[in-house]
Amino acid sequence: MEAAGLKYVKLNDVFWNENTELIRNTVIPYQWEALNDRVPGAEPSYSVWNFIMAAQKDPDPAAFHGRVFQDSDLYKWIEAAAYSLQQHPDPQMEATVDSAVRLICDAQEEDGYLDTYYIVTGRDKEFTNIRENHELYCFGHLTEAAVAYFETTGKDELLKAAVRYADYIASRIGPEAGKKHAYPGHELAELALIRLYHATGQKRFLDQAVYYVNERGRQPYYFDGEGNPYKGIHQLKPYHYSYYQAHIPVREQDEALGHAVRAVYLYAGMAAVAKETGDKTLEEACERLFNSIVHEKMYITGGIGSTHVGEAFTHPFDLPNDTCYTESCASIGLVFFARRMLELQADARYAEVMERALYNGILSGMSLDGTKFFYVNPLEADPEDSIFDPGKYHVKTRRQGWFGCACCPPKIARLYASLPAYIYTESASEIFVNLFIGSVLEKDGFRLEQKVDWEPGLLRAEFTVSSIGKKTVVIRRPSWADDVRVFCTDGADEEEGLSGENRNECRDLPIKNGYLYLPSDKTAGTFFVEMRISPRFMQADARVKADAGKTALTYGPFVYCLEEADNGPDLATMSADPMSPFMFRCIEIGKRKTLQILSQGFLRTSGPQEELYVPYREAVKTPVTLRFIPYHMWANREEGRMRVFIPAEHA
Amino acid sequence: MEAAGLKYVKLNDVFWNENTELIRNTVIPYQWEALNDRVPGAEPSYSVWNFIMAAQKDPDPAAFHGRVFQDSDLYKWIEAAAYSLQQHPDPQMEATVDSAVRLICDAQEEDGYLDTYYIVTGRDKEFTNIRENHELYCFGHLTEAAVAYFETTGKDELLKAAVRYADYIASRIGPEAGKKHAYPGHELAELALIRLYHATGQKRFLDQAVYYVNERGRQPYYFDGEGNPYKGIHQLKPYHYSYYQAHIPVREQDEALGHAVRAVYLYAGMAAVAKETGDKTLEEACERLFNSIVHEKMYITGGIGSTHVGEAFTHPFDLPNDTCYTESCASIGLVFFARRMLELQADARYAEVMERALYNGILSGMSLDGTKFFYVNPLEADPEDSIFDPGKYHVKTRRQGWFGCACCPPKIARLYASLPAYIYTESASEIFVNLFIGSVLEKDGFRLEQKVDWEPGLLRAEFTVSSIGKKTVVIRRPSWADDVRVFCTDGADEEEGLSGENRNECRDLPIKNGYLYLPSDKTAGTFFVEMRISPRFMQADARVKADAGKTALTYGPFVYCLEEADNGPDLATMSADPMSPFMFRCIEIGKRKTLQILSQGFLRTSGPQEELYVPYREAVKTPVTLRFIPYHMWANREEGRMRVFIPAEHA
Repeated sequence: MEAAGLKYVKLNDVFWNENTELIRNTVIPYQWEALNDRVPGAEPSYSVWNFIMAAQKDPDPAAFHGRVFQDSDLYKWIEAAAYSLQQHPDPQMEATVDSAVRLICDAQEEDGYLDTYYIVTGRDKEFTNIRENHELYCFGHLTEAAVAYFETTGKDELLKAAVRYADYIASRIGPEAGKKHAYPGHELAELALIRLYHATGQKRFLDQAVYYVNERGRQPYYFDGEGNPYKGIHQLKPYHYSYYQAHIPVREQDEALGHAVRAVYLYAGMAAVAKETGDKTLEEACERLFNSIVHEKMYITGGIGSTHVGEAFTHPFDLPNDTCYTESCASIGLVFFARRMLELQADARYAEVMERALYNGILSGMSLDGTKFFYVNPLEADPEDSIFDPGKYHVKTRRQGWFGCACCPPKIARLYASLPAYIYTESASEIFVNLFIGSVLEKDGFRLEQKVDWEPGLLRAEFTVSSIGKKTVVIRRPSWADDVRVFCTDGADEEEGLSGENRNECRDLPIKNGYLYLPSDKTAGTFFVEMRISPRFMQADARVKADAGKTALTYGPFVYCLEEADNGPDLATMSADPMSPFMFRCIEIGKRKTLQILSQGFLRTSGPQEELYVPYREAVKTPVTLRFIPYHMWANREEGRMRVFIPAEHA
Repeated sequence: MEAAGLKYVKLNDVFWNENTELIRNTVIPYQWEALNDRVPGAEPSYSVWNFIMAAQKDPDPAAFHGRVFQDSDLYKWIEAAAYSLQQHPDPQMEATVDSAVRLICDAQEEDGYLDTYYIVTGRDKEFTNIRENHELYCFGHLTEAAVAYFETTGKDELLKAAVRYADYIASRIGPEAGKKHAYPGHELAELALIRLYHATGQKRFLDQAVYYVNERGRQPYYFDGEGNPYKGIHQLKPYHYSYYQAHIPVREQDEALGHAVRAVYLYAGMAAVAKETGDKTLEEACERLFNSIVHEKMYITGGIGSTHVGEAFTHPFDLPNDTCYTESCASIGLVFFARRMLELQADARYAEVMERALYNGILSGMSLDGTKFFYVNPLEADPEDSIFDPGKYHVKTRRQGWFGCACCPPKIARLYASLPAYIYTESASEIFVNLFIGSVLEKDGFRLEQKVDWEPGLLRAEFTVSSIGKKTVVIRRPSWADDVRVFCTDGADEEEGLSGENRNECRDLPIKNGYLYLPSDKTAGTFFVEMRISPRFMQADARVKADAGKTALTYGPFVYCLEEADNGPDLATMSADPMSPFMFRCIEIGKRKTLQILSQGFLRTSGPQEELYVPYREAVKTPVTLRFIPYHMWANREEGRMRVFIPAEHA
C-alpha cells in the first residue's frame, strides 16, 4: 500500500480550493517575506539571515539570531513551495526557491555539515547537545524539502546537499565504535531518511533511520552521557526521558507520552520503518501508540497535547478544553502518523483520524485570509482569561502574524500544499478513497476523477474511472454518514448523472475495515455516492472529566462550536438539547460561505445576586437558539468567547 | 474598636481545643525540629543554621542556605510559640524561645542591621533589591515575633533588637533626601510597624508605616530604579508592578491584584494605618479592595489566588476549582485584613469572611495529626492529575512534611495559636462576639464567658456576663443560621439553663450591620443563643464560569466536599439534587469526630463506549447517596479525588 503521491493527484474541490489557493497566493509569498524579516510588525525570523551569515565562512559568532532550530523554517517553506509548484507551476516562485537553495548550498561546509547555528557560532560544539539543539531535526526538514523539490522539479542541488549532510551525520553518529550512539532529540530524521532512501535508492539512509529507531530508549541513556543539565520541567519525573520518548525502547512503548510533536513524528517514522523492513513488532508498537492517542488522548478536533508545559501529552482521558496545548504542528504530525499507518493497513479508522485533524484542529490554525496563525487550538476560550489568567496565557483568541518560534505557520502551509497526497492510497489491485475531496488521480494509465458536491444534509461524490488496467475502487464509509448509497450508470448515460433514469443502485457492497468495495466487474464508468449527513451531537468517554455531562456538535467531518459573535457572551450558562431539531443557514465568515447549524438549547439565569455565594435557587431555563459554526472558522470575526463542548440538557 | 487581645481571652472550645492543642503539643515542637534541620526526610530549613552563621561574624559567604527569606520562618515560629505560651505557660518551650532570641540577637550587627542573607553573603548589597529580596518582609516578621513575645513574657530583648533594626532601616529608607524612597517588595512591615508603635509608643514607627503606604505606586517606580531585571511572569504585563501592588498609588486601587499574600498583607497594613491616622480615603480604598476580593475573587472556602503563576489574583469571577493556588498563607492574610476592617467598622461581613477562611481554606492546610501541610488548598483535586498534568503539579493530594520554602506551616501555627484574639472586638460600651468559639474574655473587670455546644442542626451558645462596668453584648447574626433566638434568665436561675421554666425569649432585638444587640439593661447575667442550622446548597455568581450549573454544600461556617473515600472515584459524573432532604451521621476521620452529611444525588452512566467520541445518548441517571465531609478534613484518609462544587440536578 502506498499513498498516491502528489504528482499523480490534482486537486479541484469546492471546499479545499479556496484554502490551497490561499496557501499558494498568500501564505507562501507572505512567509517568504517573513523569513527575510520584511514583514512590518512581525517578530524577525532570522532564518534567511543565518544562512547568509553561514555562507560568509568564518562569520562573527554573534551574528546568529533566533532559535537554534531556525534553519528549519526555511526548509519547511521550500517544501511547501515545492508542493505548491507541483500543483501549480509558477516560474517566479520556482526562481525564488532556486535562490534559497543556492543560499543553503553556499552555507554548507566542505565536509557536508549544514546547520547554521553551529557554523556561525562554532563547530567545535556540533553534536554535543543532540538532545536539545535540533541538528538532526533541521537535517530532517532539509531532507524533506530536498526530496520534495527534487520530485517536483527534478533539480537535485538540494538533494545532493541533503545526501552530503546525511553522510556526514552518519560518519559521526552510528553503531560503529568511535561514533556517537545517538538518536534525535526532536524526532523527524527517521521519517526524512526514509524519503531520502526512496528518492535515492540508497539503503544506507534506511539503515540510519532503523538505527535511530532501535537506539532510542536504550540504557544507559545517550542523552545523560551528553552531560547537559536537564532544565525546567525535564528535571521532573515523569517528564524526564519520556518528554523525548526515550524512557524505554520504542518497541516496548504503549502509551503516547511527552512532547506531542516529537511523539507523533517518532511514531510516523516508526511506521515508515516498519513498512520498509516488515518489522511486525515495530508495527504492533505503532498500533498500540496510535490507539493510546485516539482512544485516550485526542481531542474531538484531532488536537493532541493536553498541557502547554512541555507541549505534551498528559495521562489518559485528561482532556481539559481551556488549558490544552493542541498545537497545530502536533495534529499535523498525527496526520503523518495516520497516513503511515494507512500505508501499513487499509483500515479506515486511520483515515478518519487524518480527516478529523485536517478539517478541524489544523485548519483552525490559519486565519481565513491566510496571514495569521494559531499555535494553540483550544476547545474553549475567553479573551479575558487569555489576558489575565497566566495558566491560559498560551491560549490566544486572535491569531498572530508571525512567531519568533514559527514552527506552525510553515508546517500548515506545507501540509495543505500537499493535501492531494492524502486523498488516495493504492495497492496493486485497489484504489482506496480516503477523503472526499474533488480531485483527479492519474497514474500509469489509470484515471480516477472524484467530484464532490456538498448540499445541506447531503454529500454527493461522483467517481469516474477510466482505466487500461483493472483496479477496484474502494471508498471509505465515513462514520459520520447516516447512510451511504452507491449508484452506477452504464457508460453511455454518464452525462445524465444522478438524475438519470437508468441509474442503478449497487446494493450489498462488501465492507471491510470501514471501506466499501465497489463492484470489481465495473472497473470503468461512473459511480455516484450519496451520503446523508445529519448534524450529530457527540459525547466523550465518561472518563474525560472535562466533558462530563457535555456534548459537542459535529456535521460530517466538521466539528462545530459556539462563538460569542453568534450567541452573545453567556456561553458558560448555555446548554444544548441534543434531542432538538436542526436548521441549516448559509452564512459568510471572512468572505467564505459556510453552513451555520441552528439548534435548540437553554440559557440558565438565576438573576443578579448580592453576594458571590448565595443559597442555591433553581435557575430559570429560557429556550434559546444556539448558532453553531465550523470550529476551524472561529476567531475570524470580532474577538470573543468560544466553546466546543457544552452541557447537554433535555427539555 | 479594638480586637480583644490574646492575653484577655482564654480558649475553651469543643471544636477548636483539639486544633490548638495540636499546635501546642505537636506543631510547634515539630517545627522547632524542622527549623534546626532535624526532621528526617524533610527538606532542610537552614533557618537556624543561617543565624548561627551570621552570629559568627565574618562568615563564609557560601554558608548561607535556603531562600533569601529563610529568617522569617524562625520569627514566625517564635510568634507562634509566644501565642501558645500566652494561653499555656510552658517553661521548657519558653526556654527554647529564649535560646532562639539569644541567637537572633547575636546575629544582629552593631549598627542594628539584621538579615542573615546579607550578613552572611555580604552587606555591600543590602537594600539593593528591596523588590525581591525580602529584607523588609523579614523585618516585619522579626517585629511581630518580638512584640508577641514581649506581650506574653515581658521580655524585651527581641523587642529591642526589632527597634534597633527598625531605626537602622529608617536611617536608610525614608522621605528625606539621601535616603532610598523605597517600600517593601513583599509587604508586611506596614502592619508590623503599627504593632511596634503600639508596643513602644514611639510614633516614628507609625510614621514609617505611613511612609511605606504612601510611597507605594508613585512614579517613577522605585523598583525600576533598583535596576534589577524583572524575570519570568513579572516581565509580562499585566503582572508588571501589579504583582507587587505597586502599579498605582494605593488610594487609587480598587481591584485586588498580584501576588495574593503580598496583596492582603498590604491591605491589612493600609487598614491599620487608616485606623491610626483616621485617614478616610485610605479606609475607602480598603473597603473597595475588600469588596473586590469577596465579591469577585474569593473561593467559597475563603481561599484567594486563582493561579499558581505568581501565586496571584486573576480577573474578576475567574475561580477555577482545580488549578487554583488558594495558598494557606493568603487566606491567613485575608483574616488579618478582615480583622483590621472589623476594627474600623463593626460590620459582621468582615467577621463572616474571617470565619470562612478560619474554618475552611486555612484549616485544610494542616493535617489532623499536625505534621503535614498544604500550601495549595484546591476545591477539586485528583491524584492522577497532580502527578501527570503539569498544570496541576502545584496541587497536591497529600499534605507534605516540610517545604524548603516553608511559609505556610509556621503561619498556620501562629494563626491558630492566636485564635482567641479573633473572637471579640470591643468598643467603649460594647463587646462584639464575632465568632462562636467557647472562651472567656476577662479585661478591666469585665468578664464574658462563651460556651458553645454543637448538635446536628443546632448551635447553642451560652453567654455569661459579670461586669462591674456596663457593656452591651453584641452578637454576630451569622448568615448561615436559619434563625437566631436569644433567651435570658434572671440571675438566680442560671443553673437551670435552657431547660429552665423561667427562660424568657428576648424578641425584637435590634440588628445593625449583621450584629444583634442584646438588651442593654441586662449587662450581667446569662443569655442563651440558639441557632438552627440546616445544610445549605450554595451557588456562585453566574459570572463564575467554573461553577456554572454547580452547587456546593455548606453547613454553618463549614464548607463541605465529596471525597473519594466516601463516594468512590466517579465524582466527575455525580450531581447533587439541591432540593433533596439531608441526613446527619457522626463519623470519625483521623480520630476526630465529625458530622457527615448525606444527601441525594445522581450518578450518570452511559455505558462503556468503543471510541473516545460517540454520538450522544441520554445517560442513565441512577440515584445515589452523596456523603459530604467538612472540607478542612479532606485528604486525611486514603489518597483520592475530591470536589467542592458539583453539578446541580433536579429529580
